[in-house]
Amino acid sequence: MAAEPKKIIIDTDPGIDDAMAIFLALRSPEVEVIGLTTIYGNVYTTLATRNALHLLEIAGRTDIPVAEGSHVTITKGTKLRIADFVHGVDGLGNQNFPPPKGKPIEESAAAFLVEQANKYLGKVTVVALGPLTNIALALQLDPTFSKNIGQIVVLGGAFAVNGNVNPAAEANIFGDPVAADIVFTSGADILAVGINITHQVVMTDADREKLATSDGKFAQYLSKILDVYYSYHYDAYNTRGVYLHDPMVILAAAIPSLITYTEGVVRVQTNGITRGLTVLYNKQKRFGEVTEWSDKPTVKVAVTVDAPSAVKLIMERLMD
Amino acid sequence: MAAEPKKIIIDTDPGIDDAMAIFLALRSPEVEVIGLTTIYGNVYTTLATRNALHLLEIAGRTDIPVAEGSHVTITKGTKLRIADFVHGVDGLGNQNFPPPKGKPIEESAAAFLVEQANKYLGKVTVVALGPLTNIALALQLDPTFSKNIGQIVVLGGAFAVNGNVNPAAEANIFGDPVAADIVFTSGADILAVGINITHQVVMTDADREKLATSDGKFAQYLSKILDVYYSYHYDAYNTRGVYLHDPMVILAAAIPSLITYTEGVVRVQTNGITRGLTVLYNKQKRFGEVTEWSDKPTVKVAVTVDAPSAVKLIMERLMD
Repeated sequence: MAAEPKKIIIDTDPGIDDAMAIFLALRSPEVEVIGLTTIYGNVYTTLATRNALHLLEIAGRTDIPVAEGSHVTITKGTKLRIADFVHGVDGLGNQNFPPPKGKPIEESAAAFLVEQANKYLGKVTVVALGPLTNIALALQLDPTFSKNIGQIVVLGGAFAVNGNVNPAAEANIFGDPVAADIVFTSGADILAVGINITHQVVMTDADREKLATSDGKFAQYLSKILDVYYSYHYDAYNTRGVYLHDPMVILAAAIPSLITYTEGVVRVQTNGITRGLTVLYNKQKRFGEVTEWSDKPTVKVAVTVDAPSAVKLIMERLMD
Repeated sequence: MAAEPKKIIIDTDPGIDDAMAIFLALRSPEVEVIGLTTIYGNVYTTLATRNALHLLEIAGRTDIPVAEGSHVTITKGTKLRIADFVHGVDGLGNQNFPPPKGKPIEESAAAFLVEQANKYLGKVTVVALGPLTNIALALQLDPTFSKNIGQIVVLGGAFAVNGNVNPAAEANIFGDPVAADIVFTSGADILAVGINITHQVVMTDADREKLATSDGKFAQYLSKILDVYYSYHYDAYNTRGVYLHDPMVILAAAIPSLITYTEGVVRVQTNGITRGLTVLYNKQKRFGEVTEWSDKPTVKVAVTVDAPSAVKLIMERLMD
């Protein structure tokens, strides 16, 4: 790597695939992790913070600051939807890990995001792996955040496919639809990686066995926590394999050539039966009337992925 | 044709492509048109009735009854969206045709639909070319209509593609989303043909020239009214050609082998920025929670079309 690594902040709700993503990022020479911010989603925010600190201790990277994020949605009247049935009640495969020694920094996630964006103007990439509350709060805290941040790579949305919370909505967007709509229409440089992409990036049973034979620290750790995640996928999708959502999004930030994208305006439905649904306007039709997509900034939306290369890289780096 | 022709009722808002569809149906040996019912959409309902009577007079088929349908939506508080910018203020290319001599029958569209479904039990196909108000009213009028009707073939929805009213919604579903949701969840045998299908079925400039050279009655009539429709497509889609929405749906009813379909539950968003959006649940995921798609009847949704054969048939029959 001749180029300077890309500074990234991972906004995360660990979460089994979040653990994989954080370890992958720490093993990816293309990026330098300058902080973690935490959010509810796979677990409540307090547990997300605990798990983020724990994972950095496992990795021996307690030099990386953890900033705790919002405990509640921006969308009014929303009961949090916590995916403990996917990740276990502790978010990490029901392993009863000891509490971490470290503590989060004093700053909130939103304040930390704004501070880092200003410190490294245009150089910071936020990789958002949970609901977009913290990112929306950073935009509200500092209206210039959209210009100061380098890029926001979002795991979110279900573009032209069914959702994973219900047929309409993907979990991260469903988690705080108003926040997602704020982010998508903010004018920041945004790349959305939806489940139409991440459902192509699968760790098979064979991959899992391979992981278990590695004596790498991360491979050993992950092998222990994967059971719950595999069981969920078998129950929900009738498949012996797991989707590598979060690690894939780290790769999309680290090695953009693994995906291709289209550009258009994305809006989020915030109520009704399709609450959390993302609609990308592809600009192929000129509408006679003003629509809710008119005159809004465009975002990038991933449309293809080199899944075999992505899985290979994830496996290699996690077994390293 | 050894088989008995399929009895069809066309629910229509003529409309330039409605005119093509009605003429096509009258020239299709696979179907027997036993009535027209009228609805707002391309024009207001009163004008739809006038145009339906006019088109039957042009065709010399005043033996076919016309039943006037609803003037208003079932969806509360909806201002009608009339597509005069697509079809002309008269719905038929601004040709200032004289008023028809005939009159609609006394029965409402919904009553006529119910009556015919009972008369020819399981043998009647409704081809719905506008908003689904009349069909929903027939279901409300007679809860057994869903079982008594043979099939309902719907021009409606935008499945995994952008809409044509705005990026989320297709015009017929947008026109009365509550009615559409009632119809899609009614348990009737329903085939939805969305703009993902009909946008593949295009009459080109060359086709239009060919139509103009035919001395067939229908070809001559249609050649006169097509200007507005071509202009709209050029403005909206930057294309020299027009989508054959309504005729394609007649063909889907008459010759089902021209399309393939999938089956799943379709729900309609009835408010917010994606009002009128259709979401098909493909049943590939087993959701842990009850969703708005759970335990609802499935419908058929067209996914592919043999567009070259469809266009060829439409051209041949209209020039006959």
